[in-house]
Amino acid sequence: MTQSRCRDNPLNRAVPTDAFIAPDESNKRDIELLFADAWRRVLNHLSKASQRPPMPSAPSTIQMDVMNRDPVPNNVLLDQLESLLLNSMNQANPNYIGHMDPMPTTFSIIGDMAAAGLNNNMLSVEMSPVLTSLENDLMKLMARYFGLEENSGGVLLNGGTLGNLQALAVARNVALDCHKKGVAVGTKSVILTSVDAHVSIQKAAMLLGLGTDSVVSIPVDSHGRMRPEALKLEVNKAQQCGTKVMAIVATAGTTIVGNIDPLVAIAKIAHEHDIWFHVDAAYGGALQFSSCYRTRLVGIEFADSIVFNPQKWLFVSRTCVALMFRNLSVLEDHFQIRAPYMLPSTVPNLGELTVQGTRSTDILKLWLSLSHLGTKGCGTLVEQGCKLASYADNCVRLRPYLQSACTPDTNLLCFSRRLHDGDSDIWNQQLHQYLSEQGFFLSLPTYRGIRWLRMVLLNPYTTQSTVDRLFDAIDIFSGFSTRTSR
Amino acid sequence: MTQSRCRDNPLNRAVPTDAFIAPDESNKRDIELLFADAWRRVLNHLSKASQRPPMPSAPSTIQMDVMNRDPVPNNVLLDQLESLLLNSMNQANPNYIGHMDPMPTTFSIIGDMAAAGLNNNMLSVEMSPVLTSLENDLMKLMARYFGLEENSGGVLLNGGTLGNLQALAVARNVALDCHKKGVAVGTKSVILTSVDAHVSIQKAAMLLGLGTDSVVSIPVDSHGRMRPEALKLEVNKAQQCGTKVMAIVATAGTTIVGNIDPLVAIAKIAHEHDIWFHVDAAYGGALQFSSCYRTRLVGIEFADSIVFNPQKWLFVSRTCVALMFRNLSVLEDHFQIRAPYMLPSTVPNLGELTVQGTRSTDILKLWLSLSHLGTKGCGTLVEQGCKLASYADNCVRLRPYLQSACTPDTNLLCFSRRLHDGDSDIWNQQLHQYLSEQGFFLSLPTYRGIRWLRMVLLNPYTTQSTVDRLFDAIDIFSGFSTRTSR
Repeated sequence: MTQSRCRDNPLNRAVPTDAFIAPDESNKRDIELLFADAWRRVLNHLSKASQRPPMPSAPSTIQMDVMNRDPVPNNVLLDQLESLLLNSMNQANPNYIGHMDPMPTTFSIIGDMAAAGLNNNMLSVEMSPVLTSLENDLMKLMARYFGLEENSGGVLLNGGTLGNLQALAVARNVALDCHKKGVAVGTKSVILTSVDAHVSIQKAAMLLGLGTDSVVSIPVDSHGRMRPEALKLEVNKAQQCGTKVMAIVATAGTTIVGNIDPLVAIAKIAHEHDIWFHVDAAYGGALQFSSCYRTRLVGIEFADSIVFNPQKWLFVSRTCVALMFRNLSVLEDHFQIRAPYMLPSTVPNLGELTVQGTRSTDILKLWLSLSHLGTKGCGTLVEQGCKLASYADNCVRLRPYLQSACTPDTNLLCFSRRLHDGDSDIWNQQLHQYLSEQGFFLSLPTYRGIRWLRMVLLNPYTTQSTVDRLFDAIDIFSGFSTRTSR
Repeated sequence: MTQSRCRDNPLNRAVPTDAFIAPDESNKRDIELLFADAWRRVLNHLSKASQRPPMPSAPSTIQMDVMNRDPVPNNVLLDQLESLLLNSMNQANPNYIGHMDPMPTTFSIIGDMAAAGLNNNMLSVEMSPVLTSLENDLMKLMARYFGLEENSGGVLLNGGTLGNLQALAVARNVALDCHKKGVAVGTKSVILTSVDAHVSIQKAAMLLGLGTDSVVSIPVDSHGRMRPEALKLEVNKAQQCGTKVMAIVATAGTTIVGNIDPLVAIAKIAHEHDIWFHVDAAYGGALQFSSCYRTRLVGIEFADSIVFNPQKWLFVSRTCVALMFRNLSVLEDHFQIRAPYMLPSTVPNLGELTVQGTRSTDILKLWLSLSHLGTKGCGTLVEQGCKLASYADNCVRLRPYLQSACTPDTNLLCFSRRLHDGDSDIWNQQLHQYLSEQGFFLSLPTYRGIRWLRMVLLNPYTTQSTVDRLFDAIDIFSGFSTRTSR
């Protein structure tokens, strides 16, 4: 029993003495030891990611029949935590190249730890004085970094789905003036987006009272990019029917193939018809940090709103999503619901300006991670991924029995067995299974009606030699050799 | 330079070698030192909370003119982090008794640290195999703990506002069948809730396309509890006008005074008219953990949906909110939007069943905190708060110059100068300022048209002697003495 445990404990005996960090230093030593033990286990686990497969083979969970009445001892709890770690997705393994799920920056972990300890409330300035200012300031800089003008700015949200929801809520309120009266009295309205857009657009339409039928899918070209002439047709058709086009949503980094809609052409159509232009750059927005690749986002600066997820290609731990507006005052004019219990403030109370009220303190880890990497470090990581995807695309081209779904705009590549006769799905599934046995994780989505093996080259420790070993394994599976041709 | 820095670094030189926890242990020692430094600073800060005022006097933020191109050195970054800590709300000080903002459990910090390191994705089973199961299992147990029946269960969301939003989205979809077609073709519909309900009900109505006008406020009694006979009148009125009552929302723990609507009477009215019954128990739900006080929640077991925030009175760090349903299958039947890129699974992909897609991993800290405290420890903390609020209420009663807004149902107490003549607001504001100078933080909301000093007795280190010292200070301010009467 350490010294601190012997002191007076103001907590009732039913509450463990280390339930909280005592504000009078009385249990500091105990907390120190407990946290050191917990962190040692977590760090040991994470730093050995390469020794475990990308996915747990047969995940087993904690058995719970009832909520425990009495406290579980710390060592038992930390043992259980370790077993949860072992049964989790292990995307830090460089052979994990399957989803848009990054390993986190070191400063994400530090930021989340500090944010949890502080437990300030991002609802209002009073409850998070300096952190609200930090969010406000960094979001203004971020919006400018994406080319938005002087009055731009943004908010952080817990996930990209909420980003698209809020962007479309604002677009709807602007188009239909339905903040007070609702949409029941309005005209029929639609959202135009590509057939490859994220499912969160449908979810937003459902939530916003427009219904999923209000999402009209525009066809894409052979590279998965929205066809502007098809968009134009649909806009004209809507106008002829007296249907209001509430918003046009372009995608920069689609879910399956990661490609980018032609932003300039789409912006032009939106501008000509005075339609809200939203860019879902949840994934591809990270290209803005690369001086080589940011040209792929040209046109994003014309957006009325942009969603960008540092939680994806900027490696900030989940959640961390920026929703930016060309003119931040739309939130006060068309979205805000005032909370009577908040004090007035010169800095906005962000809880009044988001679809959420209370949010987690994502600004801390974002600011720490950006500062620690610098925009240059971010750009370098993005370039590494793009180059690796091109390299993998080339590996596919070298193999006549394989085909890519399209030329990659980002760090994603989908490939499959080239169709000669019949069904490639079974072959692709068997290959997926074989690769999994060889310690590689790729995903296996359906796209254009068939299965593809999907690579997301996001892990900074994944190298050309990882990709080489992957394609060697594919060659072995298929009985093909390209060794000489490399 | 430590040994690990000398090894081959697979990262480009533009990226700091400790940007990530290397999966091959190559930078483990560096990370260990960095994290020890960061944690030492955070723990030093938190364990000295009593030495700093509850609120920073003049918070100063980090100056940022541009996003930095080059990495900021670790020691500079950690110094800046420390300055952010010092400029933040300090609710761990036992004299902080102003908002529903708890100091966090120790295991919240451990949970958030581990969750950030793992960075699994609560979107789908594939991306968070064991954590999705854990959430599913614990939410089922929690729903049963609140008295819901066999088919009940729930999901975690990032904040109570989202909880109310999703509950009302489901209620709307059930009532109006508008998932595909939207509400534009439906009949006029309203949400009935008390005038003291949280502003998130208005926000939900706006977002859901019903408009804020669709929220009809039911009057409350002198204790801030919804008047059931007034509710009944409004239901009858709506039916006579052909208006659909989409949901009745009762509050268990209102925002300003913390009181609880008469749940049994309201449930009866909802049941008689076949109306969705939602209970916003964001705050008061914690009473369920106390064998003494859970009777105050009787009737909650009749709810169709319940929001309960462990992030408030269960001391789990933000965010952590449970949304529970009497019958979890309503989510599949009336809410789900299927994501084509998800693998089928026997355990549900929670991203398809929530207003969010990706969410932060709040299940880990919730499970850890509940296990560490036990339901008994949770109940003890809740009882401590309730008793302290009654004690404070008694302190008010002993002083003829003060009045309470109402008898507390939870751990909140609002009081003000008893009105003799003219305006009590100025006196209350001056007292608020004086108490702040004495190192106490109370909030100062407007309620029933006047200002009140509001106590939230949530800090486990706040004791009767804290309350005594507070009222001593109030007596000094007002020139009153009750010393002999105690």
